[in-house]
Amino acid sequence: MNAPTQPIHLLPEICQRATPQALLDALKARFAQQCSTALVVREQHGRDESSFSAPPPSAVIFAESTLDVADAVRLASEFEVPVIPFGIGSSLEGHLLAVQGGISVDVSRMNKVLAVNADDLTVTVQPGVTRKQLNEEVKSTGLFFPIDPGADASIGGMSATRASGTNAVRYGTMRENVLALEVVTASGEVIRTGTRAKKSSAGYDLTRLMVGSEGTLGVITEITVKLYPLPEAISAAVCNFPSIEAAVRTTIQIIQLGVPIARVELIDVNTVRMVNAYAKLGLREEPMLLMEFHGTPNSVKEQAELVQEIASEHGGKAFDWATTPEARTKLWTARHNSYFAAVQSRPGCKVISTDTCVPISRLADCLLDSVAEADASGIPYFLVGHVGDGNFHFGYLLDPSIPQERVTAEKLNHALVSRALALEGTCTGEHGVGLHKMDFLVSEAGAGAVNMMRTIKRALDPKNIMNPGKIFSW
Amino acid sequence: MNAPTQPIHLLPEICQRATPQALLDALKARFAQQCSTALVVREQHGRDESSFSAPPPSAVIFAESTLDVADAVRLASEFEVPVIPFGIGSSLEGHLLAVQGGISVDVSRMNKVLAVNADDLTVTVQPGVTRKQLNEEVKSTGLFFPIDPGADASIGGMSATRASGTNAVRYGTMRENVLALEVVTASGEVIRTGTRAKKSSAGYDLTRLMVGSEGTLGVITEITVKLYPLPEAISAAVCNFPSIEAAVRTTIQIIQLGVPIARVELIDVNTVRMVNAYAKLGLREEPMLLMEFHGTPNSVKEQAELVQEIASEHGGKAFDWATTPEARTKLWTARHNSYFAAVQSRPGCKVISTDTCVPISRLADCLLDSVAEADASGIPYFLVGHVGDGNFHFGYLLDPSIPQERVTAEKLNHALVSRALALEGTCTGEHGVGLHKMDFLVSEAGAGAVNMMRTIKRALDPKNIMNPGKIFSW
Repeated sequence: MNAPTQPIHLLPEICQRATPQALLDALKARFAQQCSTALVVREQHGRDESSFSAPPPSAVIFAESTLDVADAVRLASEFEVPVIPFGIGSSLEGHLLAVQGGISVDVSRMNKVLAVNADDLTVTVQPGVTRKQLNEEVKSTGLFFPIDPGADASIGGMSATRASGTNAVRYGTMRENVLALEVVTASGEVIRTGTRAKKSSAGYDLTRLMVGSEGTLGVITEITVKLYPLPEAISAAVCNFPSIEAAVRTTIQIIQLGVPIARVELIDVNTVRMVNAYAKLGLREEPMLLMEFHGTPNSVKEQAELVQEIASEHGGKAFDWATTPEARTKLWTARHNSYFAAVQSRPGCKVISTDTCVPISRLADCLLDSVAEADASGIPYFLVGHVGDGNFHFGYLLDPSIPQERVTAEKLNHALVSRALALEGTCTGEHGVGLHKMDFLVSEAGAGAVNMMRTIKRALDPKNIMNPGKIFSW
Repeated sequence: MNAPTQPIHLLPEICQRATPQALLDALKARFAQQCSTALVVREQHGRDESSFSAPPPSAVIFAESTLDVADAVRLASEFEVPVIPFGIGSSLEGHLLAVQGGISVDVSRMNKVLAVNADDLTVTVQPGVTRKQLNEEVKSTGLFFPIDPGADASIGGMSATRASGTNAVRYGTMRENVLALEVVTASGEVIRTGTRAKKSSAGYDLTRLMVGSEGTLGVITEITVKLYPLPEAISAAVCNFPSIEAAVRTTIQIIQLGVPIARVELIDVNTVRMVNAYAKLGLREEPMLLMEFHGTPNSVKEQAELVQEIASEHGGKAFDWATTPEARTKLWTARHNSYFAAVQSRPGCKVISTDTCVPISRLADCLLDSVAEADASGIPYFLVGHVGDGNFHFGYLLDPSIPQERVTAEKLNHALVSRALALEGTCTGEHGVGLHKMDFLVSEAGAGAVNMMRTIKRALDPKNIMNPGKIFSW
């Protein structure tokens, strides 16, 4: 792993390709009311949860079927105009920005659950289905879809960014949970990757090539994912610690002992304060681990006892239990709202999120030094982490009227990524590269590997129309 | 999924490219004693466990380092001569045959465990390390590497074929367990994919593109895989059933209930007889499930009680337990030797193995009809299955002096694959495509997806030197 040597990347290079009127006319003719060129609609589709901005796309197509997507891509290909797939807009790294112009293909109306195969623990959905909707629709089967990135993201978007979140420590990420895809390629062809079999050695793993490709290789139009039986018993607990270090060392030991914990989330004291202010929760204002145990009643009891023992050795307090579904929902909602709680703590702020992930033994080294640096910088921040996976997020809360704050935050991020790479980790555990981490990707993977990605991209999308300008430069 | 429409593929098309003397001279100059052109050595490297044959490679390079591999590939690239990576030769689908000529790059001397990171549950190895060697070398850490395809395969080869085996039902396949790779590309460049972080969204998933690419995109020269804490308790049990159907229906229910069983293997009565004759085991000659439970003592007890209850409902007998490591080893050795036991039951026979994998609810449909067909054919066969994953293998035992038997066996295989594809399964759960399933792959994935694979291959290996003629036609 090389330390990042590129200059700090502050703003995306914007190099717009013009959208010919003839394409807009053809889109209007084909899509009628499903095609909008209204500024407000375009602006809504030209941003995400990142702090970047770029001129909006020239048009938005509201696709209602795979055929709609294929036709939109074919027309765009004919005119060599970029296509940016859009789910619900919750991505964090500038993925949705039309930095090279083009059209947005919104798949949110493709929101049907197509086939629940409860006996096989699989479900096939359209890309606009959100994770909450999916769980609502499969509820009666006694199964659930565990991947939970916080936002009520679309399954298509979660596939495209290789999302994960709080449950990944036990259930894996989208990488492990997508079985098969339908994809509209850059030429507008419809292909299928994978089957509903749990495993396969049938040729190149196109499914996993598409998962995490951030819309740069095609538009995902159908996804088959794994489901899991709802555990017989679920218990959530909060445990407070005297320091972040104590919480982190507890986590490391939990993982090293192979405890099949379902969730283990770090929330630092800053963030607990923000969450309390936002949601009136009255949580004890100390660093905490928010944990969840899944299994049979006996197994949950065993896991919890072992983890309590480990925590106590590190000065952790007695567990505060949430055993009813309502109490659990309240806790996890608080966790998921930490982002909004943080934003509200500094009205008008912009957030720069970090997303490093390191091998578990390196977690304390990576995290504690970065906390010290963030504290010293004076920039307000929140800190939450899927620490069981070695993944955590600082959110630096910037006053956009003070440009120096952005510079400082990017320096903090740069130092953090350098540290994570030196510790054999990654610059992005789950958010993706987008616009923001293109230089970091080169530092992490090396020019040779990024060049291999680029070679694949050029072969599969020779006109560079699929979400161009993201992940790596052309 | 389309039913296979291609003609039955009986023998690989052999279209040898000449190896210029100048290349052989250059290899001799660079590699001296590490380069062999002895016929016996070449023949040893020109076959695998499949029933195919082709003329052997022109030379064998015994690589001792990544640099050796890179130099060999660079020289081969210069002369546009094929390179076939070789681990220990245990692949099953003709992967190692020099159907287009070329040189074999044997990595078995690259057999060092490079870094055991016990605290992170990862280990980094050279490609020639075998799975048994790996487990031996990490034993003292209290960790183990679960992937077990039966043969004592090399970790490089297992990565290249996306292998799995008996433990995959709980621990996943090589797809889920490889974290990072070092790869020599078709141009002889050395790249790294992935990091030691447990998850990442950093660009295209080159790791998983390489895993399962069967040597057609590069030579794997280093692999980082996950390790797991040795379970506190392990128990194995044999359960006999009145019929294959009863055993299969028991398996389906175990999986649907989400029991975290570590292994659940079907062995049909034919195969039990063969194993008894081979290893003098005295197993009851009835269809059986061979199971293993991992966890805390309580959890193992809970799992076993639940599975015994399910089995009893389907007429399963009382479990016959193997609780000591020795007794377990004996049972699993018997399972792993079933292939050799079967071969010995018909001396001089050749084996055609099937490898379909279907969604678990379709397992009975897929398996029982195929058993009926195999019984009706009169060809002797063995039948074992990683049934918890929906994956099973018929091994048709052919007398090579009776060509009609091969035709019959291929017809059985063809009918089985057609059935598996119609049931939303795959033609290969774990063996790979190699030479034998190229037509099936087109039926399974569709021409569009195979064409995408071909486009990637052409972009990354424009001279078509990396194990050409495998997976798909150029």
